[in-house]
Amino acid sequence: MRSGTDRPRVAILGASGYTGAELVRLLARHAGVELTVLTADRHAGKPLGDVFPHLGGLGAPDFLRVDEVDWTGIDVDLVFCALPHGTTQEVVAGLLGAAGPARDAKVIDLSADFRLADVETYAEWYGRGHLAPSLQPEAVYGLTEFARGALAGSRLVACPGCYPTASLLPLVPLVENGAIGLEGIVIDAKSGVSGAGRALKEATLFSEVAEGVHPYGIGGHRHAPEIEQEVSRAAGEPVTLNFTPHLVPMNRGILATIYVTMTDGLTADDLRAVLRSRYEGEPFVRVVDAGIVPATRHVRGSNRCLVGVFSDRVPGKAILVSAIDNLVKGGSGQAVQNMNVVCGFDETSGLMQGPLFP
Amino acid sequence: MRSGTDRPRVAILGASGYTGAELVRLLARHAGVELTVLTADRHAGKPLGDVFPHLGGLGAPDFLRVDEVDWTGIDVDLVFCALPHGTTQEVVAGLLGAAGPARDAKVIDLSADFRLADVETYAEWYGRGHLAPSLQPEAVYGLTEFARGALAGSRLVACPGCYPTASLLPLVPLVENGAIGLEGIVIDAKSGVSGAGRALKEATLFSEVAEGVHPYGIGGHRHAPEIEQEVSRAAGEPVTLNFTPHLVPMNRGILATIYVTMTDGLTADDLRAVLRSRYEGEPFVRVVDAGIVPATRHVRGSNRCLVGVFSDRVPGKAILVSAIDNLVKGGSGQAVQNMNVVCGFDETSGLMQGPLFP
Amino acid sequence: MRSGTDRPRVAILGASGYTGAELVRLLARHAGVELTVLTADRHAGKPLGDVFPHLGGLGAPDFLRVDEVDWTGIDVDLVFCALPHGTTQEVVAGLLGAAGPARDAKVIDLSADFRLADVETYAEWYGRGHLAPSLQPEAVYGLTEFARGALAGSRLVACPGCYPTASLLPLVPLVENGAIGLEGIVIDAKSGVSGAGRALKEATLFSEVAEGVHPYGIGGHRHAPEIEQEVSRAAGEPVTLNFTPHLVPMNRGILATIYVTMTDGLTADDLRAVLRSRYEGEPFVRVVDAGIVPATRHVRGSNRCLVGVFSDRVPGKAILVSAIDNLVKGGSGQAVQNMNVVCGFDETSGLMQGPLFP
Amino acid sequence: MRSGTDRPRVAILGASGYTGAELVRLLARHAGVELTVLTADRHAGKPLGDVFPHLGGLGAPDFLRVDEVDWTGIDVDLVFCALPHGTTQEVVAGLLGAAGPARDAKVIDLSADFRLADVETYAEWYGRGHLAPSLQPEAVYGLTEFARGALAGSRLVACPGCYPTASLLPLVPLVENGAIGLEGIVIDAKSGVSGAGRALKEATLFSEVAEGVHPYGIGGHRHAPEIEQEVSRAAGEPVTLNFTPHLVPMNRGILATIYVTMTDGLTADDLRAVLRSRYEGEPFVRVVDAGIVPATRHVRGSNRCLVGVFSDRVPGKAILVSAIDNLVKGGSGQAVQNMNVVCGFDETSGLMQGPLFP
Repeated sequence: MRSGTDRPRVAILGASGYTGAELVRLLARHAGVELTVLTADRHAGKPLGDVFPHLGGLGAPDFLRVDEVDWTGIDVDLVFCALPHGTTQEVVAGLLGAAGPARDAKVIDLSADFRLADVETYAEWYGRGHLAPSLQPEAVYGLTEFARGALAGSRLVACPGCYPTASLLPLVPLVENGAIGLEGIVIDAKSGVSGAGRALKEATLFSEVAEGVHPYGIGGHRHAPEIEQEVSRAAGEPVTLNFTPHLVPMNRGILATIYVTMTDGLTADDLRAVLRSRYEGEPFVRVVDAGIVPATRHVRGSNRCLVGVFSDRVPGKAILVSAIDNLVKGGSGQAVQNMNVVCGFDETSGLMQGPLFP
Repeated sequence: MRSGTDRPRVAILGASGYTGAELVRLLARHAGVELTVLTADRHAGKPLGDVFPHLGGLGAPDFLRVDEVDWTGIDVDLVFCALPHGTTQEVVAGLLGAAGPARDAKVIDLSADFRLADVETYAEWYGRGHLAPSLQPEAVYGLTEFARGALAGSRLVACPGCYPTASLLPLVPLVENGAIGLEGIVIDAKSGVSGAGRALKEATLFSEVAEGVHPYGIGGHRHAPEIEQEVSRAAGEPVTLNFTPHLVPMNRGILATIYVTMTDGLTADDLRAVLRSRYEGEPFVRVVDAGIVPATRHVRGSNRCLVGVFSDRVPGKAILVSAIDNLVKGGSGQAVQNMNVVCGFDETSGLMQGPLFP
Repeated sequence: MRSGTDRPRVAILGASGYTGAELVRLLARHAGVELTVLTADRHAGKPLGDVFPHLGGLGAPDFLRVDEVDWTGIDVDLVFCALPHGTTQEVVAGLLGAAGPARDAKVIDLSADFRLADVETYAEWYGRGHLAPSLQPEAVYGLTEFARGALAGSRLVACPGCYPTASLLPLVPLVENGAIGLEGIVIDAKSGVSGAGRALKEATLFSEVAEGVHPYGIGGHRHAPEIEQEVSRAAGEPVTLNFTPHLVPMNRGILATIYVTMTDGLTADDLRAVLRSRYEGEPFVRVVDAGIVPATRHVRGSNRCLVGVFSDRVPGKAILVSAIDNLVKGGSGQAVQNMNVVCGFDETSGLMQGPLFP
Repeated sequence: MRSGTDRPRVAILGASGYTGAELVRLLARHAGVELTVLTADRHAGKPLGDVFPHLGGLGAPDFLRVDEVDWTGIDVDLVFCALPHGTTQEVVAGLLGAAGPARDAKVIDLSADFRLADVETYAEWYGRGHLAPSLQPEAVYGLTEFARGALAGSRLVACPGCYPTASLLPLVPLVENGAIGLEGIVIDAKSGVSGAGRALKEATLFSEVAEGVHPYGIGGHRHAPEIEQEVSRAAGEPVTLNFTPHLVPMNRGILATIYVTMTDGLTADDLRAVLRSRYEGEPFVRVVDAGIVPATRHVRGSNRCLVGVFSDRVPGKAILVSAIDNLVKGGSGQAVQNMNVVCGFDETSGLMQGPLFP
C-alpha cells in the first residue's frame, strides 16, 4: 500500500454481479479509498451505468477484463474479489503467490474459496481440489466482530457467507460461553433472491419465485460446513448441526431462526444477557429487547444485524432470531467493514447508512 | 336436511373475509349444493360483487346480517361458519343447542372455537371461557384424511387451522407408526399474508410486509396446542413441541419445515415409505419422490398437500416439508371436503381445480 | 378429425413454457378432448411433473421432441402451437401444407407467426420473411368474440397476443360504432412478468423486476401493428396509435388504460352503453358498472375480461380500462375458447374456473 | 432561527407515518441540524424505535403529542409538517400567524394544504374552506429546481406532491420552451403503495395489492389541479390535462409515462436537448441517454429523478418517462432539499445516498 496521505487504490474483480454493485455503492462514497479498477469480463469496455443504471454518474471507471488489469504497474493496493466460487483461488494465487506481481496488495475475498480452513473439506464440498493451498493458512475468516486482531495484519480476508454471518453472530457467543448445548442445533434460514446472484437460472426468474416459498439444498448446502467450522472453533470440539435454507420472494434479507437447547438452569433472559454483554458497543450488532422481533425489513440496505432471544414453550429450549441484509452485513458491507479494519480506518466508515423502510 | 333430490341449501356466515370468499368460489360451482345465504354484518344489503369484484356475476345472494337469517323457516341445511374466533360458539349454540331452531342443520366451523377438545385448554389459550361446552364433545376435528368415520354421522365439524393442517399431515402417520421420536420436534412454518384475514391491521399493510420476512407468536401461537392435541392423540401420550410461524410476502401458501429425530435404524426412505403407504389413493395428499422439494407455488389455489422427506446430515435426523394453500386445504377447501364427507358426496366434488402457476 | 364419439386427440407443441403449462392445466380437465402429445425439445423424455411440479399426477404424457411426433400415424387431430415466435410457420407449413401429413388437423397457434395478415408487415416487424405465405390467408385472427363465424370452418387459428386482446376488446366496438375518434388513441398497458415467458433473460430475474416498474419497447413493440391491424379493420381505414407496455412485479395480469377522444356529443355513459350492448350475453367479457374499477387481481386465473369506461376531466375525452389474465384470456384460455368454437363444443367448456383472489 | 454557529433545531410533526420516518432517516445524519422534537399523537410517550424498529438506536427524541410542544420556549427553529391533509393549515396558522408563538420559525409542509395558490380551487378539490388563507400567498411551491429564488427568503414551503414532482420535472421545461403542445397531454402514472401512507385502509392491505395493478381516482385525483397549476404557470395560460394514477405492488417508486404532442418540426432529440440544457448541473435530475429507459428501481431510496424522452411511432408524438422514489424526491428528500436552500446549506446535504438496487 502506498505510504503517505495517498488513499489506497481499490479494484473490484467481478463487479457486474449484485455483490460487486453493492461494493461500488458503498465504496464510491467511502472517503478513504479511490476506486480505480472494475472488472467484468462479459461487460468489458462498458461504463458502469450501462450495466447498473442506478450507479450511473458516480464517475467510476469503465469495466475491464480481469486480464487487462496492470498489476505490475501498481494500479491497485486493495482487491475485492467478487468472482464466482471456484475461480478466485487461482486469481488470488496469481496476485499474492511467491511470484505474484502484487504481493503487497491486500485481498478481500467475497467468494467461498478461502472460507474453509481445511482444504480437504473444501475439496469434499466444492467438488474440486483447492488451487491455492499454500495461501489458505493465512486467510482470515472475516466475521469482523470476532476477527479484528487477525485482520489487522492480514493480506487475505475470506469474508463469511451470508447465511453463516446471520447464523454465527447469535450462536458463537452462546457456544463460547457454554450457554447452549452443542447437540440438536437447528438453523432454519430464509433468504431473499439476490443471494442467488445475477447469473441466469430458471430458479430465480420472477415467475418461479414470486408468490411462493420453498427450501433448497436440504441437508447439503455448502454453508453448512462453514457454519460448523466456526461453531466448532467456538466450542473447542466438532459440532454437527442442521442448516436448512429457504428462498423467500423478496430482494434482500436473511432471517435465521435458530432452535437451541439451553444449558441446565439458564433462561432466555440469560442467553440475551450473554449476547448483550458480548455485543455491547458493537456498532453493527444490536441485541433487541425482550418482545421485539427482528425482521429483515428493519435492516434493509444497512450493515446491521438484529438479534433476538425467545423462550420456547418446550422447557429448556430457546429460539434465536437474527436478521441481516444479505448484500450488506452478509456480503459487501462486511467486506468493507473488514477493509476498514485491515486499513486502520474507522470501522464504520462508509457503512453508516440507515435501513430503508418501507 | 331435506329429503329427496333437493340439494342442501347452504349458508356462509362471515362471507366477507378471505375464507368466506374462498368458500363462495368453491361452492358456487359445486353441483351438489345451493348457496342461499351469505352473511356479513358490515356489508349487509350489498351484493357480493361489491365486496369481492372477482365473485361478481355468480348469481349469489346479497349479504344479510347474521340476525336476519330465518333459521326457523328452514332457509338452510348446512352452515359454514367463517366468523372470527370467539364469536362462533354462541352462534353455534344458538343453532344446534337444545332449543335451537336448526337442530337438524349441519355446521362446518372454520374458526378455532371447537378445535380444542379440552375446554380448559381453550380457556387458557383464548383467554375466555368456552360458550358452548355441551356441544364441544360432539365436535369432530376435521382433518379429513383422519376423520372420515367420525364425520359421516356428525352435525358439527371443527375444521383444523391452516398451520395444523400443514403440520399434521406429515407428522401424524409417522407418530402413529412410531417412526419418529416424540422429543424435540421443531415446526418452522412460513405463511402467506391472507392467513391473517381481511381485518385492518397495521401489520398486514402492504408496505409492512413486502420485501421482508419475520417470525411472530414465538413460543405462544394458538395453533401450538391444536397441533399438540392431535400429535398427542396419535402418540397416545402427551407431546410438547416447538411451533414457530413466520410471515412471508405472498398472498397464499403455507410451508412447514419440520425437524424430527428418526427412530433408531430408520432412514428418510423409511419415513417416506410410511407416508406413501398411509396416503396411497388419497386424492389430495401427495408424497413427492426423493429429491423433489415441495413449494407453495405448486399447490396455489388447489386443495393439495405436497409432502417430502429428506435426510439431514446430522445422523438420525430427518426433515419433513409440507406445502398447502392456506385458504384451500388449510381453510375453505378442507371445509368443503368435510362437507362432501358429511353429505355423502364424492369427496373431491368441487375441489378438482388444479394449482395455478405461475 | 375422427368421426363418431371419439374425442379429438390434442397435441401441445412447446409445452414447457408458461402458456404450454397453462394449456395443460385447462385441457387436462376438458371433457371434450384427449391430451395425447406434449413436446418440449429441451425436456424430451421427462414426465410433465418434473418440469412443472404443479401439473404432476394428471396422467399427461411425457415430453417428446417435436420431430418424434408421428403425424402420419394420425396421433393427433388438434395441434396447439406454443412455440417461440418465428419457429411456428415452418412447423405449420409442414403439417398443413400441400404435402403435409396432417392436412386434416386443426392448428391453434399461440405465437405471433400468423397474426399479421400482411406478410410484408410481418417481415418488417419480425425481421425475416414469412415462411408459410400461402397459408397466411386462411389464418383466422382468433379474438373469439369477433371471429366465431370464421372460426367455425377454419383449420388455422392465430390467437391474438395478450396486449392486443386487452386492447381490442374495449376498442373494437367503439371504433365500429364510430363512438370514438381514430386520432390520438393512447394505450398504456401494464403486464405481469409471465408474459415474458420462461426463457432465461436477465430482465426477468426476480431481483431485476421486484419492487419496480418500467416501460419497454417504447414506440416499437411488435403488438402495435397487430392492434393497429384490427383497429383499422374495425374503422375501415388505416389507424396509427400509441401502444406503450410496462412491466409490473406480478406474475399474471394485463391492465390496459386507453385514452380516447369521444365523438362529439357523446359521454362516457354512451360509450359504456355501446360496449354493454355489444357484449351482452358474452360469457367472458364483462362491462363493469360506472364507478367500478377493473383490476387484474379480479380476473386472475380466469378467462374473463373486465372493461370499464370513465370520463376524463378534459372535456371530450374518456378513459377505457380493461383487465385480463395474460395467460388465460390473453393466451391459453382464449386458445381453448377458440378450440371450443372450432370443434363445436360449448364455448365455455373447460373455462369456467373463477378468478383466484387473493 | 438562532444566530451564530448553533445548528437549527428541527421538529417533525406527524413523524409516525412513512414520510415522517423518512424525514428522520434523512435528518438524523444531516450534519447541519439537530432533531429535537418528534410528534405523533397516537404514539405519544413511545420511543421512535418502538414505532419504527429500523430507526432504533439513532438517539432521536421520544414522541410527543403535538400540543405538548413548547413553541414559546423556542424549542424549534424549523418545522417539518408531515400531518394528514386538512390538518396542517390550522397548525401552521397557529405557528406563523400574527399572534403565533413561533413567527420566526420556518415551516416545510409536506401535506397538500398550501400547494394550491387559489384558495377557491383548494376548497373545491378538498371539500372544505382553507383555514389559513392569509398565509397562502407567502407559501412557496417547493419544486426545488424551479423555486430556489423564492425559497431563499421564505418561511413557508409547500412541498409538491409525489405525482406532481414526477410529472412536472419533465413537463415544465418543455412547456416553458414551447417544445410541446398544451392540448392532449396524458400523464399515466404508476405508484408504489407507501404513497398511500401508514393509515389503516382495506385497499392497502398486502393481499389487496400484491399480484395486481389497477388505476384509481380516474378523472378526479387531487394531484391533477396541482399539476395543472404549475403547467399553466409555465405555459402562461390555463392548461387542462389528463392525469391517471395506478397502484403497483411495490413499496416505493413513481413512474410517470407522459404522452405529448411535439411542436411542429421538433423531434424527440430536440426535446431531450431542451431538458438536458435545463437540468445541466442539477445534482438530482438526470436526463438519460437515448435508448436508456428510466425505472423506479434505479432511484429507490435516493433523491434522484431520471427523465427519458422517446419518439412515438405516431408522427409528431413523443413519450416522456420519469422515475422517482415517492418518499424521497417525491416527499421527504425534496423537503430536506428545500430546507437546505431555505437555510443556506449545501443543497445536497444529507441527500447523497445512492439508490439501493436490487
